[in-house]
Amino acid sequence: MLDNPIVTFLSDFGTREYYVGSVKGVLLSTNPHCRIVDISHDVGSHDILECAFMLRSAYTYFPSRTVHLVVVDPGVGSARRPILVCTENHYFVGPDNGVFSFVYERESVLRVLHITSEHYFLRPISRTFHARDIFAPVAGWLSRGLEPEKFGDPITDFVKFSAPRVRSGGDKTLVGFVLHIDKFGNLITNVTPADIASKGASSIVKIRLGPKEITSVAECYADGKQGEVFGILGSAGYYEISTSKASAAKLLGVQRGNEVTFELK
Amino acid sequence: MLDNPIVTFLSDFGTREYYVGSVKGVLLSTNPHCRIVDISHDVGSHDILECAFMLRSAYTYFPSRTVHLVVVDPGVGSARRPILVCTENHYFVGPDNGVFSFVYERESVLRVLHITSEHYFLRPISRTFHARDIFAPVAGWLSRGLEPEKFGDPITDFVKFSAPRVRSGGDKTLVGFVLHIDKFGNLITNVTPADIASKGASSIVKIRLGPKEITSVAECYADGKQGEVFGILGSAGYYEISTSKASAAKLLGVQRGNEVTFELK
Amino acid sequence: MLDNPIVTFLSDFGTREYYVGSVKGVLLSTNPHCRIVDISHDVGSHDILECAFMLRSAYTYFPSRTVHLVVVDPGVGSARRPILVCTENHYFVGPDNGVFSFVYERESVLRVLHITSEHYFLRPISRTFHARDIFAPVAGWLSRGLEPEKFGDPITDFVKFSAPRVRSGGDKTLVGFVLHIDKFGNLITNVTPADIASKGASSIVKIRLGPKEITSVAECYADGKQGEVFGILGSAGYYEISTSKASAAKLLGVQRGNEVTFELK
Repeated sequence: MLDNPIVTFLSDFGTREYYVGSVKGVLLSTNPHCRIVDISHDVGSHDILECAFMLRSAYTYFPSRTVHLVVVDPGVGSARRPILVCTENHYFVGPDNGVFSFVYERESVLRVLHITSEHYFLRPISRTFHARDIFAPVAGWLSRGLEPEKFGDPITDFVKFSAPRVRSGGDKTLVGFVLHIDKFGNLITNVTPADIASKGASSIVKIRLGPKEITSVAECYADGKQGEVFGILGSAGYYEISTSKASAAKLLGVQRGNEVTFELK
Repeated sequence: MLDNPIVTFLSDFGTREYYVGSVKGVLLSTNPHCRIVDISHDVGSHDILECAFMLRSAYTYFPSRTVHLVVVDPGVGSARRPILVCTENHYFVGPDNGVFSFVYERESVLRVLHITSEHYFLRPISRTFHARDIFAPVAGWLSRGLEPEKFGDPITDFVKFSAPRVRSGGDKTLVGFVLHIDKFGNLITNVTPADIASKGASSIVKIRLGPKEITSVAECYADGKQGEVFGILGSAGYYEISTSKASAAKLLGVQRGNEVTFELK
Repeated sequence: MLDNPIVTFLSDFGTREYYVGSVKGVLLSTNPHCRIVDISHDVGSHDILECAFMLRSAYTYFPSRTVHLVVVDPGVGSARRPILVCTENHYFVGPDNGVFSFVYERESVLRVLHITSEHYFLRPISRTFHARDIFAPVAGWLSRGLEPEKFGDPITDFVKFSAPRVRSGGDKTLVGFVLHIDKFGNLITNVTPADIASKGASSIVKIRLGPKEITSVAECYADGKQGEVFGILGSAGYYEISTSKASAAKLLGVQRGNEVTFELK
């Protein structure tokens, strides 16, 4: 039995229906002592890539031995496998559809197990809600200290996709895109300081986004002048395009996926 | 004192205001050891039927002795009674307006008590927020192990409505309706496998929804072809109308309450 | 070590991104035993006044020694100070931008400390996410029982704004405004029973809101007749304008900030 078991929960279920509540019920029925922490349930429906990014930006802040329940699962009930990913510090439970891609990229993965031990599952197993009937009981038992090996055999052919890469747009130029628009209207790009360094550059001269040219790079949101659009290094390690106390997305009419060009020096 | 007291919380309060937070504060002030789990706070405003369905689909997954705090309460402060429902495994606290209808239907109800013991209530009692001033303290004390009888006397004339029934549409034909549209755009009907069996049928030939005729029934969401609309048995035991990785509701322009005809064989 | 440490969390972060989840991860990494309770994360973006009102309406319901983490922080990363407010019963952690104004007004404030002890902070400190890198570790350590004095020195020039006051509109007349529109469409004004008493009056004759004249004051929501708009004393101590089982805001086309006149006797 773990001393203080924590289970995080990330999904695209929304918080309007009973989905999240019933999963928590199963977790607590399996391990009455586990503490459940929501990461988000507002991942875009079926958006595996967004889910993978969200997980990447949150899981590292949790204590060692945390179990992360991650369910964006358009293939629920089909041949896609339920898996358990074990790293040095964390456990991850969810579908084998790529949601753990950035975990594989960042962590020393000890093993990935195909969950097959049906006697841990809830009965009857619905074909449409494995979060409740398979993933939650497994996460619950894991949080009780059950050994991962109990749930199934190791696999090596798990699904892993690459993060959409920044490409070169010529000498000292990078072309990325808008990865995410957050609640504040900040445009989060996929460009990192490492990308800039890889071009032998050290700073941003200009950011182009459609017809808009942005020449100001701020250190903090409040540095920007009222109404001014600026670049800024965000908290997840990506460059963002922001504006002070307003939505850059609305101001610029930008959508997720739009191309962003960084001119460097 | 219960060893590991759990209080679930279901309401139409939304999560924007201080309503949910202050109720949780009262719960924790009453029982600092209780663990609060949100079912949902996005039940449609004043929608007692939706609340009753949401409760029905979630409460059974929680451990024995869980206290369920359920507050969709358009009659707050009026003559409607605050009640406590005791079943073999669960306690339910909320207004006597029908929110517990499906609990009465499914459970062996031991007793329903009219909550009148005012010395447990928060003072002053507002006339507009009994969740905070009456239901939360009662749920908190109950989760501490206080005996239900302490809160009031048994009643038998509690409010109970029937679930909207599926009706016959002729030989081997059922007429139901869209009970709920979920976050994914799945259309959840009120038709169950038991309804189909009651017509001496064993499978669905066709589902009609306005001008749309649906002839495909999938086992899991991923079985459906891209763009195809299909029927599927959902995780709460009702048939749903879905489409792969998209919103059936948007695709078909359907609203809650729309009639759905099932032709069977 | 506190026996049963509670940390509440109020912000404008929304629940869509990883922001709230990663803050909770830091809290639990700092104090694995703390229990986190969300007040709301849907405060309007950058809306310090709304945040201050939300805090005012919720914090008093929590047990003694609760730590309240409050982050609406448009000035994050700028010169604005991170502070810790200690009152007889509660701790408050957040930016020095006015979010604690009503705490200063209502409580006997023991001291306000400028948080400067960087060795408690998360490294590297981002310039855009102090909730995660500064406020959460401080709240976590505080919930472990660390003495407030460890985090920095007392200040007295903290930012405090006054609540927007009700003004006199003549003899027995008050002019307030719509402070907030809640999830139900209730129009919450800034007028209190104390304001009415201060005019030597004891009851409301008429409420004027644009062209609309409201002459009915209800004791509870259900008292109002179907379709009727009425005044009512709400659960946070302010007069509201409501209508039975429908949205007064929609019915009247009113927005936050609109002027409301109360005629008294």
